[in-house]
Formats: sequence, C-alpha cells, structure tokens
Amino acid sequence: MSDALIRTEEDIIQGFLEPLARGFAGAFGLRDDCAVLAPEPGQELVLKTDAIAEGVHFFANDAAADIAWKALAVNISDLAAKGARPLAYLLALAFPQPPQKAWLAQFADGLRIAQDQFGCQLIGGDTDRRPGPMAINITAIGSVPIGQMVRRGMAKPGDQLFVTGTLGDAALGLALRRDASVAKRWQLTAEQVAHAQSRYLRPVPRLALTPALRAYASAAMDLSDGLVKDCGRMCAASGVGARIRASDLPVSAAVSRVVSAEAMWLEKVLAGGDDYELLIAVPPIKVRAFLAATQGLDVPTTAIGEVTAGQALLVEGPNGEPVSLPRTGYDHF
Amino acid sequence: MSDALIRTEEDIIQGFLEPLARGFAGAFGLRDDCAVLAPEPGQELVLKTDAIAEGVHFFANDAAADIAWKALAVNISDLAAKGARPLAYLLALAFPQPPQKAWLAQFADGLRIAQDQFGCQLIGGDTDRRPGPMAINITAIGSVPIGQMVRRGMAKPGDQLFVTGTLGDAALGLALRRDASVAKRWQLTAEQVAHAQSRYLRPVPRLALTPALRAYASAAMDLSDGLVKDCGRMCAASGVGARIRASDLPVSAAVSRVVSAEAMWLEKVLAGGDDYELLIAVPPIKVRAFLAATQGLDVPTTAIGEVTAGQALLVEGPNGEPVSLPRTGYDHF
Repeated sequence: MSDALIRTEEDIIQGFLEPLARGFAGAFGLRDDCAVLAPEPGQELVLKTDAIAEGVHFFANDAAADIAWKALAVNISDLAAKGARPLAYLLALAFPQPPQKAWLAQFADGLRIAQDQFGCQLIGGDTDRRPGPMAINITAIGSVPIGQMVRRGMAKPGDQLFVTGTLGDAALGLALRRDASVAKRWQLTAEQVAHAQSRYLRPVPRLALTPALRAYASAAMDLSDGLVKDCGRMCAASGVGARIRASDLPVSAAVSRVVSAEAMWLEKVLAGGDDYELLIAVPPIKVRAFLAATQGLDVPTTAIGEVTAGQALLVEGPNGEPVSLPRTGYDHF
Repeated sequence: MSDALIRTEEDIIQGFLEPLARGFAGAFGLRDDCAVLAPEPGQELVLKTDAIAEGVHFFANDAAADIAWKALAVNISDLAAKGARPLAYLLALAFPQPPQKAWLAQFADGLRIAQDQFGCQLIGGDTDRRPGPMAINITAIGSVPIGQMVRRGMAKPGDQLFVTGTLGDAALGLALRRDASVAKRWQLTAEQVAHAQSRYLRPVPRLALTPALRAYASAAMDLSDGLVKDCGRMCAASGVGARIRASDLPVSAAVSRVVSAEAMWLEKVLAGGDDYELLIAVPPIKVRAFLAATQGLDVPTTAIGEVTAGQALLVEGPNGEPVSLPRTGYDHF
C-alpha cells in the first residue's frame, strides 16, 4: 500500500482530525469513545444531523476543502436559523477507498477554516470504509438561552416574511458546474461566475442574524430545498398560508442576468435549492426593530411577503397576478 | 409509483418515525429543523456517532427490525461503556431506492423496541436517497454526573481487567449467517445456533453495569473490533500494557464447542469483533466492591487479566506460555 494512503482509522483520526479538537476538553483529543458537553448555565443545546454525499450534494472532483466546508456549513445553517450559537460537531466519514493523505490534509484544512469561522470544534466521530459514494455525516450542536430556540411552526397570520441574502445563486453555481458554457450563453462576467460558484461550493450560514432572530422572529428556517418547498413546510408546521411577491425576491446581479435571458430561471429562484439563506417570519409590531437590528450586517434582509390565514401558498407577479408554482423543490424520494 | 413506496422525506418522517419522538418535548414532533436538549442539573451530556451500512455491518436481507436494533445498540453500547444513561438519539438514513412501507414499518418497530429497552427517544434526523449501500447513522446522547464519564485512557498498572458477557458469539453468528452448514460440522444444537445468531443480530448494550462503572472503574470501553485490538487501544490511550489469560476468557457453550472443534477459533474469541461487551479496568482496592456491585446482574463479569507497566499486550496460555496474537482485529482501512 502506498505511503500516500491511509492504513487505519487511527491514521485518519490522529493524523488529520485530532488538531480540530484541540482545546476542547470534552473531546479528549478524539482518543475516547465518546465526547462530553454541557451547556453554559441558562442555556440549552440545539442539535441537528445532516449528511452530504458524493454525486448527490457534491462532485467527486470538487476540492476536498470545499466538500468539508459544505458538510459543516449545511448543518450550521440550521443552527443559525434557530438562533443558536454553534459549539461543537461530530463527524462520521464513509469512504469507498482509503483516501489519499493529501486529500485528507485538504479536507481537514477546509474543516478548520469552516469551524474557525463558525465558532465550533470537532469533538468526536467515526470513519468507515464501505462501497458507494463518499459520504460525510455531521451532527452539529449549538446553544440557545433556555426556551429561546426559534421554531419553524410558530408563524402567525400577519407576520411579515423576510429572506437573507439572495436566492438562486447556488442553483446557478450548479448549472455552471455541470456546463461551464452557459456562462457565455448568458453573458455572465467572470466575477458573476465566481460569485455563483462560491455560493454553490461554500454556503455561508447566516449566524450574524442570531441576535435579531432571538429577539424578534416568530418563526424561522433555513432554505435548503428551495423557497417554495421550504416556505410550504413552515406554513404546514405553523398551520398558516403565505403570500410571496415574486418581484421582491432578492437576486444577485448574476441571477438577475440569467432570469433576463431565460424567464424560466425564475423557477430556480423560487425552487432551486441549496440557497442556505434564512426564511424569517416577524410579527408586524416587531418589524421595525427587526430591520433596525439587521441593518448594517454584511448580509441584507429583504421583505418578500407575509403570512396569511388559511393554507394556501401564493406567489404574486408584479401586477398581483398569480405566478404558477414549480410543483416542488428538491426531494430525495 | 406504487402505493407501497415512499414518495417524500415527509412520508418517512411523519409516517413512520414521528411516533418514536412522542413525549419528548425538545423533539417538536420531528417537525422542526433542530431538536433541543438540556442535561438535568448536575449532569453533562455524553455524545457518540456511529454508522452501520449494508454489506459491511449487516446483510441487505436481514430483518429490518434487527437492522434498526443494531444501529441503535452499537451507539448505546458506547454510552454504556462510559457509565452514561441514554437520553436521546438523532437518525440519518441513506437509501439507494425509496424503501417499501412495510420495510419502514418493521424498521421503525425495531427502533421502538430498542429505544424502549435502552431508555431513550428519537429527537431528530435526516433522510437522503443516494446510490450505494443503505446506511444508518445514529448520534446517541446520554448523561452522566458532571466529571464522572468513565474514560478510556485512565487505566493504571495493577488494575484488574474484566469483560462482561461472553466473547466470540457474534463472530460465530456471522459465520453461521455466511454458511449455515457450519452448524452441522461443529455439531451445534439449535439453541446454540439461535444464541449466536441473536448475539450477532441484536447486541445488548451493557447498561446494567452503569452504577458499578461509575463507582469503581478507572477505565472502560466497549468491544466492537475484537478484544485484542480494543484492549490495545485502551492500553495506548492509558500509556500502559496488559496481560490477558486466554483460559479465563468467557465463552458461551456454542463458542466453546467450536473452539474444541477448531482450535484456531480462539482467534475469533480474541479478535472477532462485534462483541459489544465491555472491557473494564478496576483498581485492586476497588475490585471487591466492583464484584459485589456486579453480582446478581443478568450479565456476568469475568476477570481476564491485569494492566501492566510498559506497553506490551500479552496473551498467556493455560501454562503461562505466550499465545501468538492475531495481528489486528477489524479495521475498515
């Protein structure tokens, strides 16, 4: 076996992952069977598990550091939507073949950059070899003041709906990843191409919103399967409907360019998936304070509609006409 | 698509898994993005993530209820080794094809039986469809009094070594699963066959030992990759060696029969893997109290050797002669 290959689980854990656990007492240097964690007084823990797999959520030849970033970011995005502060994560890796040491070094480097930015540390994990696609399963753990987790199911009729950032960029990044020639067809600038690629490869959990969410949101969730599908989930969990103004949906210059070229791309804005922006419901009486709290953040927050009584999810065009909805966003089944 | 098949993630979660979360407030009926959990006052949380995959840890045509049991049991076994009481778990499922509803119903039933026995509940999860083997990743969460988690790396020279239950049964169960005819060759009774099969399919986490572990163990871990390999890990983490008496290793009537027929089967007792028994180091001064505390439990605890200074792991035959060790136990790489 080549020296560039891994021989044992210990090679992976102690050789590459242990540095990610340093300084976290309850991780025991990844040398024990379990990790130990306790919330600060007055806090409780918020937990989420999500996996990404080669061929489904990323391409085999994506950069290892990008794969690592995305695996952690999609979990931390859920914590961000709940108003939770990231603390730690567990990592379960499945490889069809022993990974190259150079690949693992880059993967660990991507995790390090991501965990430093998100403010959490690796505390435990598991590595397996099995056939099939490489898969990375992360369980992320954050904390919120007791009782203050922002729920998905507490939106009320009259609440205003906001989204962070811009929608459809990751769908464009994926389209470019599949066929780079569309950049020319849609006359995208190099900067616009880079923006969309980065949004697809390195989604940024919207942790900057945490104080505003805790203080003013009645409900929130992150957008992973497309706005229409995920907003439908918030509505179903809350027993409400929603009206969304298509012309108010925030899009980047790149996506704006593509929608101008191909009007059907509006569907990607509504249902493209992988946005990892936040959908936030704010009671009318708190909207002003919410907007004040989000002003000046690096990420914009845009009003896109409101929560309604009933169960219908309506998307309105510029003149109030209904926009026919894409049937669903992404579903694995 | 047939009515027996699953159409959406919600079908799986709300149709089959939600009942497993009922009564646990922080699970929010599996309708939110995250779960919330806090330890009781004076307790901290113990966390472990481990996956099982078709073709590696189980066979595709194993009963769904057995697969579910094993997925949870292998994680709870780690909590048991740490002296932790199980509280909750997160479940990430990966299916290459939409599962049959009948299969899912049996899978959920197996989880229900297991979680009832282990005293924990499902609080969150994720379902994906991806090529490759079906895989079940569980993150288990337990609690211990603050600072009382039983560590892997605290064994000291002079400590007595104990194991729970019997060793090699799961290896025999796997051998029978691969080739049922060996039962006849080794003249196993139907009862012995059933015992080995059950031990392979439904390992029982040794939670009964929790009070004795917390009170008297200096170190402990569960045996998943074979006694020799896992004892070597405890020694490495503790900076010690160990001497194990081969003739004292506890074996069932079934395994005893097989070792009589084929002496090389002693290697499976030493390195077979999948035992899910506990290896426990107890300081000499506490041995008497430890034995008293484990007396009368359903599972026997057997002294098998002692911790030594240095780094060597020795296995001694009946006359004190060294037994040549299998090079390693199970490693995925």
